[in-house]
Amino acid sequence: MSAEAEEKIKAQEKYREMSIAEFFAKNKELAGFSNTTRALYQTIRELVENSLDATDTHSILPEIRISLRELEAATDDKPAKYEVSVEDNGIGVPPNEIANAFGKVLYSSKYVIRQTRGMYGLGIKAAILYSQMTTGQPVFIISSMDSSENIYYRKLLIDIKKNEPVIIEEGQLIKKNNWHGTKVYLTLEGDWTRAKPKIIEYIKRIALISPYAEIIFETPDNEIFYFPRVTKKIPKPPSEAKPHPHGIDIEQLKAMISFTKTKTLLEFMTEEFQTIGEITARKFLESMGLDPNMNPKSLIEKGNSKLLQTLSTGLRTYKGFRPPRSEYLSPIGEELIEVGLKRLFNPEWVKAITRQAKAYEGHPFIVEAGIAYGGNIPPSEEPVLLRYANKIPLLYEEREDVSYKVVSSINWKIYNIEEPMPLVVLVHVASTKIPYKGVGKESLSEVSELESEIRNAIQEIARSLRLYISKRNSEHILREKIVTISKYIPEIARSLSVLSIPPEKWGNNKNNDKDLVERLIKIVSRSIEFPKIDGKEEDPEKVVRSVIANVKLEQ
Amino acid sequence: MSAEAEEKIKAQEKYREMSIAEFFAKNKELAGFSNTTRALYQTIRELVENSLDATDTHSILPEIRISLRELEAATDDKPAKYEVSVEDNGIGVPPNEIANAFGKVLYSSKYVIRQTRGMYGLGIKAAILYSQMTTGQPVFIISSMDSSENIYYRKLLIDIKKNEPVIIEEGQLIKKNNWHGTKVYLTLEGDWTRAKPKIIEYIKRIALISPYAEIIFETPDNEIFYFPRVTKKIPKPPSEAKPHPHGIDIEQLKAMISFTKTKTLLEFMTEEFQTIGEITARKFLESMGLDPNMNPKSLIEKGNSKLLQTLSTGLRTYKGFRPPRSEYLSPIGEELIEVGLKRLFNPEWVKAITRQAKAYEGHPFIVEAGIAYGGNIPPSEEPVLLRYANKIPLLYEEREDVSYKVVSSINWKIYNIEEPMPLVVLVHVASTKIPYKGVGKESLSEVSELESEIRNAIQEIARSLRLYISKRNSEHILREKIVTISKYIPEIARSLSVLSIPPEKWGNNKNNDKDLVERLIKIVSRSIEFPKIDGKEEDPEKVVRSVIANVKLEQ
Repeated sequence: MSAEAEEKIKAQEKYREMSIAEFFAKNKELAGFSNTTRALYQTIRELVENSLDATDTHSILPEIRISLRELEAATDDKPAKYEVSVEDNGIGVPPNEIANAFGKVLYSSKYVIRQTRGMYGLGIKAAILYSQMTTGQPVFIISSMDSSENIYYRKLLIDIKKNEPVIIEEGQLIKKNNWHGTKVYLTLEGDWTRAKPKIIEYIKRIALISPYAEIIFETPDNEIFYFPRVTKKIPKPPSEAKPHPHGIDIEQLKAMISFTKTKTLLEFMTEEFQTIGEITARKFLESMGLDPNMNPKSLIEKGNSKLLQTLSTGLRTYKGFRPPRSEYLSPIGEELIEVGLKRLFNPEWVKAITRQAKAYEGHPFIVEAGIAYGGNIPPSEEPVLLRYANKIPLLYEEREDVSYKVVSSINWKIYNIEEPMPLVVLVHVASTKIPYKGVGKESLSEVSELESEIRNAIQEIARSLRLYISKRNSEHILREKIVTISKYIPEIARSLSVLSIPPEKWGNNKNNDKDLVERLIKIVSRSIEFPKIDGKEEDPEKVVRSVIANVKLEQ
Repeated sequence: MSAEAEEKIKAQEKYREMSIAEFFAKNKELAGFSNTTRALYQTIRELVENSLDATDTHSILPEIRISLRELEAATDDKPAKYEVSVEDNGIGVPPNEIANAFGKVLYSSKYVIRQTRGMYGLGIKAAILYSQMTTGQPVFIISSMDSSENIYYRKLLIDIKKNEPVIIEEGQLIKKNNWHGTKVYLTLEGDWTRAKPKIIEYIKRIALISPYAEIIFETPDNEIFYFPRVTKKIPKPPSEAKPHPHGIDIEQLKAMISFTKTKTLLEFMTEEFQTIGEITARKFLESMGLDPNMNPKSLIEKGNSKLLQTLSTGLRTYKGFRPPRSEYLSPIGEELIEVGLKRLFNPEWVKAITRQAKAYEGHPFIVEAGIAYGGNIPPSEEPVLLRYANKIPLLYEEREDVSYKVVSSINWKIYNIEEPMPLVVLVHVASTKIPYKGVGKESLSEVSELESEIRNAIQEIARSLRLYISKRNSEHILREKIVTISKYIPEIARSLSVLSIPPEKWGNNKNNDKDLVERLIKIVSRSIEFPKIDGKEEDPEKVVRSVIANVKLEQ
């Protein structure tokens, strides 16, 4: 070994701690801020999703105003600078929480078991970090709760080394109207020209499944996109849940035990978990050989780690627990999905389905799907896929998503769908924990329970579609036959009339002809049965008469 | 609005802080621990990559021993439990750093500008968290540095709420031999049967590009995979770099200014950055209107934020800086790539290329590519893609990777490659900052500079391959022509000899025939020129003679 190499062995590595803020500043692409285009898109997304979580999740009809202004144009040397602001009429942020909620990474109200768009307590802070890193400017937040008499404002930076907010300016104003909500201003480098299609598509797709929201988007080109509120019907909001035993690992169990106020294991089981009643709890504890009257705290004392392990494994695997409750979840609903697809694509046929709730690792989830076919949908090699998770549209990383995997594996020919296909497939997953592949929240992992639910949902609708298409096709064939038969009716009638009356009366057979035509129409019509399409049945006689009318016209 | 809804508006959200350990425990799939199969794979990966970083990065020929033992078999109810241990002969961890290096997320020696396999200071801690969450067992670490007289051991858990190590047991032994390195034992739930193909593939691929390493893998099936050291030639290790000005944002600049010991802006520029000499520094500062004698610290004082912004934008965009230095990087090298591909696929043709260094956002990178064609490669619809980043193989999320994007967009027909293709494409990216899409380190982002380098590298080799294939094909056609011509040579010779000598001598024309054949062979051979293949040229006369020999044999 060379002397140099020996020296290198001895050279000690330099160890140090990194704050989570520094981590996401240094690795901004992990949260979706990989370049000026993505960053602009991601910033608007995070702000809009926070606004929706602050409104419809609390039964408020959302009013969201997004504005994007160019502060400095791009030059050869540097990207353009923008000011983004998003305002909502949500519940507002408590004044004493504003600084941390915007200035401390991993400080959030999203760390409860509830279906929310935000999940990591990270997105808005990543946007603020990006803003700070590219322009050095602070974020400006204005917020007021409904119950508050004041409007509070804070101007702040994030101390990246310490992961702490640094207040630059703060204050409050007396509220003169009933406004409640939050408005956030950010300055950042971006590329509007490239980001525009994605941003517009994103807002359209948000509007598609939130027809109860009013959204206004003012672009740097001074265009205004206005999505009016179409309905005041707002889906039942999601509610907070207790954990399901199947989703609990040893570490969570330890934490729950150290926080619980319950005095016995039996109480602990029934109080701290969802779906466990006293009978189930007793049965479970008995099968684990655990004393129901034991103090749960004793399980985290020294020497009891075997018992703790037994309880933990039991909770995760015992088959006697009821599945996680789905009433905590808030799906979009079949009606809204169908209305949305109709509005966007004006298809020939549309259908949506909301499946029963299922669970993976103790997390309940509901899969919804919708298919639109024909009409204004441009035919293409593969179906257009619209992905949603907890009511947010996912636009990037489509090919990594479990839905894409399912959709691309389906053989559409067996559903009588021609190629290229005029087909749109929408998939929505609602859950207290969406299994995103990355903190940028763009694609869902291949969780097997999820995959099979998505497949079932799509196949179920596809079967209806096949029925529709085959009825439509057989109707088409039938109609052709009717045309063939019907257009000979006048001719046949004439021939019959010639045969049925003596030659001396051949001159004035007009009435007889008419009569015969009528009788033939009745005979033919009675033998026709059109397939019902969408519950409506056509009148065969009408069809026959229209054919004859056309034939006569042609003559 | 309903009374209930009103109440909800007033209901304040619950805010709290989450530690980074809790974050990755709750969202374990983000670091690649999405299920028992992936978790086992990821754990071995993280340990092996740490071992390689502790050896070849410090010019030590790696000896790595991986062992996987089943502790409890799987049942219907629960997954199997395994003990993983990985031992290396690396530089070891300083005794006072062991606890944090293994027990504190985001505490690491990887936070310097250097090409290392580890990047986030996260992987091993994520594995320990997973182990702890599924089995409650501590991690056991044994380590000794070369300079140390003792071997140190620590048994520890991570306090997830606090993100701190909790030492369960610790101690030291006097070292009786020269051993240095680290050995880590982990207990975790896993699924060996499903993970096996990926783990074996991973180790094979590591061995493919680290032929200087000795790797032994003992499986739970009591199989032993032994990859002997094939060469003692170890590539020049990467070295630590100063930051390049193009990669600096305002936040980093502020941090650098607050840490610097330099007294003037001029000094600051030349001391703290790579590639900036005094002349460049003066030119740059002048063009920014900044005084070279100014104290850098004054830029972070109040009122100077405009100047700071000017400097920051300037650093990022000034075109007069030299590109980042590539000598800090450690590519695999064309030779090792070609040897590796030959060993693995025994192809008909192979070629590798190491491109010149380029940079993105101030980070230098080198793209290397290799193509193997024909031979034992099974033909398929698309090329087999082998992806590497900083010498680690990437096995998951192929379709999201920038290399896949490039490879799948190439029209292989223009390179004369038939379909299905017997083709393997290897891509290696070496950089001080690999633009991974997620902390699980499985796929690379579509950074445009990277994309174009990968494209150029592959196309350059593909052009050589086209040349080879077209030569091979034209040689094939030529050979057929030669066969056609050559087999008539004896016949022509006989006819010529009949014409050229008087009839009375027709009886003993044998020698004359031979002579004529010889002369014809010379004439034909002179008109043939075989294409050079791999620098070797075939002797046309030999070919002609062999054809004639065969023709005679047939007669």
